Amino acid sequence: MNRLAVQTGVLQANQEKAAENRALFDQEKLLAINLMSSPGSGKTSILESTIRALKGCYQIGVIEGDLQTSLDADRIRALGVPSHQINTGTVCHLDARMIARALEEFPIGGLDLLFIENVGNLICPSSYYLGEDLRVVVCSVVEGADKPKKYPVMFNKADAVVLNKMDLIEDSGADLQTLIRNVQEVSPQARIFALSCRTGEGMEGWLHWLRQKMESRAPAASAKAGG
Amino acid sequence: MNRLAVQTGVLQANQEKAAENRALFDQEKLLAINLMSSPGSGKTSILESTIRALKGCYQIGVIEGDLQTSLDADRIRALGVPSHQINTGTVCHLDARMIARALEEFPIGGLDLLFIENVGNLICPSSYYLGEDLRVVVCSVVEGADKPKKYPVMFNKADAVVLNKMDLIEDSGADLQTLIRNVQEVSPQARIFALSCRTGEGMEGWLHWLRQKMESRAPAASAKAGG
Repeated sequence: MNRLAVQTGVLQANQEKAAENRALFDQEKLLAINLMSSPGSGKTSILESTIRALKGCYQIGVIEGDLQTSLDADRIRALGVPSHQINTGTVCHLDARMIARALEEFPIGGLDLLFIENVGNLICPSSYYLGEDLRVVVCSVVEGADKPKKYPVMFNKADAVVLNKMDLIEDSGADLQTLIRNVQEVSPQARIFALSCRTGEGMEGWLHWLRQKMESRAPAASAKAGG
Repeated sequence: MNRLAVQTGVLQANQEKAAENRALFDQEKLLAINLMSSPGSGKTSILESTIRALKGCYQIGVIEGDLQTSLDADRIRALGVPSHQINTGTVCHLDARMIARALEEFPIGGLDLLFIENVGNLICPSSYYLGEDLRVVVCSVVEGADKPKKYPVMFNKADAVVLNKMDLIEDSGADLQTLIRNVQEVSPQARIFALSCRTGEGMEGWLHWLRQKMESRAPAASAKAGG
């Protein structure tokens, strides 16, 4: 069996396992979001701000993917939200089997909203469907306006693209117009949110989109929330 | 053959091809540097500043790796320096075979210094030796102080770590002390350079290190330079 055949087999097996995760998410009536980006674009910070804003409305849980450390899961737990850390070792992405194993240890019954924060990598995670409802790609504005064109495999499947670190837009000299135009070109279907989770600028649009998705996904979800 | 055996075979074949590249670099008496980082940390900008400073002293060439586009090679060529773009499609790293193929089209005879700018990815490129003399990892200070701990496979083989975007250190609230401590912990062998290629701050230390490496590599190299 050659390299290509092995890779095709791996992706096929992943697809089947993802379908099982999907069925489980449906059964629990939760919305699952796969959050992907380069390292250091601010995924965990966005999650922190999002959780602070929405934890009174929904029961939220987070699965964290990192090569090593449980730093991100610790940050989420500090907000009083359940979190499970997957350490992939040297593997550059989460896959559906890792999520299935995590779900054996991490109870999702009662959750309305599950965030899966993928390994920081703008390439490999895009090939592995985890069973999620939505794919959100985060890109910090200081990464440069050319990123959607240079990493189209990640951007062209996104349901939403969050352009983070807007508080640095002036000091960095980043070209927001070109960045937005490049996102629109590579992923015309994606909703775009330019925000700063540090200052709160632009957060409301993102939160509004999430609330809309929650409503269309599970109209009775808010009834589950304790807050 | 299972996935692990295929991967082991791939890495073994890569090692053999890298040894051939290495022999070619030795024959040409050039210093080859593999430049790796997350997307958007500023590898190409560092190359631009480095080339401007050193092109009068050395004959420099650049091989660029990206999934798509020739944006980076175009930026290098605009400085009057030869550059060759490799497009990897969906492959998340350069490998020794891609470099060997590039060397068939890209003449390195007469070069003193060859930079290989890898695909933006803080994980996969670290597993693929290309035949280089030195590995330089770039990390923008705004990516967060935890990156060396979360991506140790990349940092622990680095000969030097360049902490870029120092011009944003205050506005971003980035924690430089912790970042440096984490780099030192994960890669105690690496020289660390905190700089901003935008303002020029800290560039001299990095350039001095490169000049030292050039001297120890090929004492007669400067005789080849036309400038």
